Amino acid sequence: MLSDSIRALVFDVFGTCVDWRGSVIRACEAVGRAKGLSNVDWPALADEWRRDGYIRGIARIRKGETPFVSSDVLFRRKLDELLPKYGIRGLGEAEVDDLAKAWRRLDPWPDTVPGLEKLKSRFVISPLSNGSFATLTEMGKRADMPWDCIISTELRQTFKPDREAYLLAANLLDLKPEEVMLVAAHDNDLKAGQAAGLHTALVPRPLEWGPAGEQPPPANRSFDVVARDFVDLATQLGVD
Amino acid sequence: MLSDSIRALVFDVFGTCVDWRGSVIRACEAVGRAKGLSNVDWPALADEWRRDGYIRGIARIRKGETPFVSSDVLFRRKLDELLPKYGIRGLGEAEVDDLAKAWRRLDPWPDTVPGLEKLKSRFVISPLSNGSFATLTEMGKRADMPWDCIISTELRQTFKPDREAYLLAANLLDLKPEEVMLVAAHDNDLKAGQAAGLHTALVPRPLEWGPAGEQPPPANRSFDVVARDFVDLATQLGVD
Repeated sequence: MLSDSIRALVFDVFGTCVDWRGSVIRACEAVGRAKGLSNVDWPALADEWRRDGYIRGIARIRKGETPFVSSDVLFRRKLDELLPKYGIRGLGEAEVDDLAKAWRRLDPWPDTVPGLEKLKSRFVISPLSNGSFATLTEMGKRADMPWDCIISTELRQTFKPDREAYLLAANLLDLKPEEVMLVAAHDNDLKAGQAAGLHTALVPRPLEWGPAGEQPPPANRSFDVVARDFVDLATQLGVD
Repeated sequence: MLSDSIRALVFDVFGTCVDWRGSVIRACEAVGRAKGLSNVDWPALADEWRRDGYIRGIARIRKGETPFVSSDVLFRRKLDELLPKYGIRGLGEAEVDDLAKAWRRLDPWPDTVPGLEKLKSRFVISPLSNGSFATLTEMGKRADMPWDCIISTELRQTFKPDREAYLLAANLLDLKPEEVMLVAAHDNDLKAGQAAGLHTALVPRPLEWGPAGEQPPPANRSFDVVARDFVDLATQLGVD
């Protein structure tokens, strides 16, 4: 059985473990209420923050167009641009800093913690994310995600989907790549993990971009496991 | 109150959290029984392994006398020397490898896990150790030490008591040094942490070198807290 040779599961976090979009919208709405801001399109702001600030920000660094900074810096820089663009005024530095750190306070999907608890009984479980070490640590603690350790690509100043990011996980855990399984909702992440020699499990998250948002493509059959959620993943890996 | 300004507690591991000596002796004795070896002085082997393999091995790397290797490599190299010296024969490669990894299977002191559980409710808790990332992860998981993350000095190819090792912890957690408290049984570790700007808590472990072994010196009064054990530390830091 495949799961007999797997020693560790490493998880993509934003979208796979946590509902970044719903959580960021809720954090923004709370700021809006506190500041008496109406008519701000918070969902559009959240999507732009993720897409232009984080995903494209990382892509630019990977292409060598801009120097390395941690994803925390990318989140903060983009927020500084988005506040005036969306007509948000009156926030002091501490409030802006706190809002940028909404990305540390993301809520897990309902199956995430129960699934991780089961999987932890059999495997080493860790995030493997482009989120910063501090962000992943704080997020895991707040949400009771029972990680055995925290692996951030920041530890090597790299970013997924660079090959080095996946090998980092195996290397730090003193495992062979094929003893590690990457769990993610995104094909590009899994394909890059696969190319680096990791096993792969796809857990599609159709609500990642909201109920009316972008839908995941049909499951790629080259992944070792395709699971409905983390509890189903545990069952498929033989954990009761 | 001091504890209001502390956000994270980072712990020395070997000796402070775990009884390395008792655990390594038990692992060696199990090998001795399995291999029918009698008359091996396992306690002496354990002490020499720790003192010459690990402590002096790290000191030599810090002085630039030998190139950097992880502490896992130091443990293995020393074991390869100690086996013939102590008359231990008949172990295959897999058995030697497994015995070297006894350092991943160290048992906590009785107060360690209950104390960490309390402290975790209020602070981020992490090891800060010269043990490798894989060693600390596996040890924490096996012993149910509820770490929020794993910080090994291996992440920066440094070793305590280098200043950089202490700053690494603050840096990875996105905290100021003074928001971090180092918990350790050893004065030299705490003094170096203090010099790097961390707060300090001494938890003496008089049984570290065995009932007849080296005793800790009288508590240095410059440390912020001196606690009997981890549960007492929680109480002193205002955690019920």
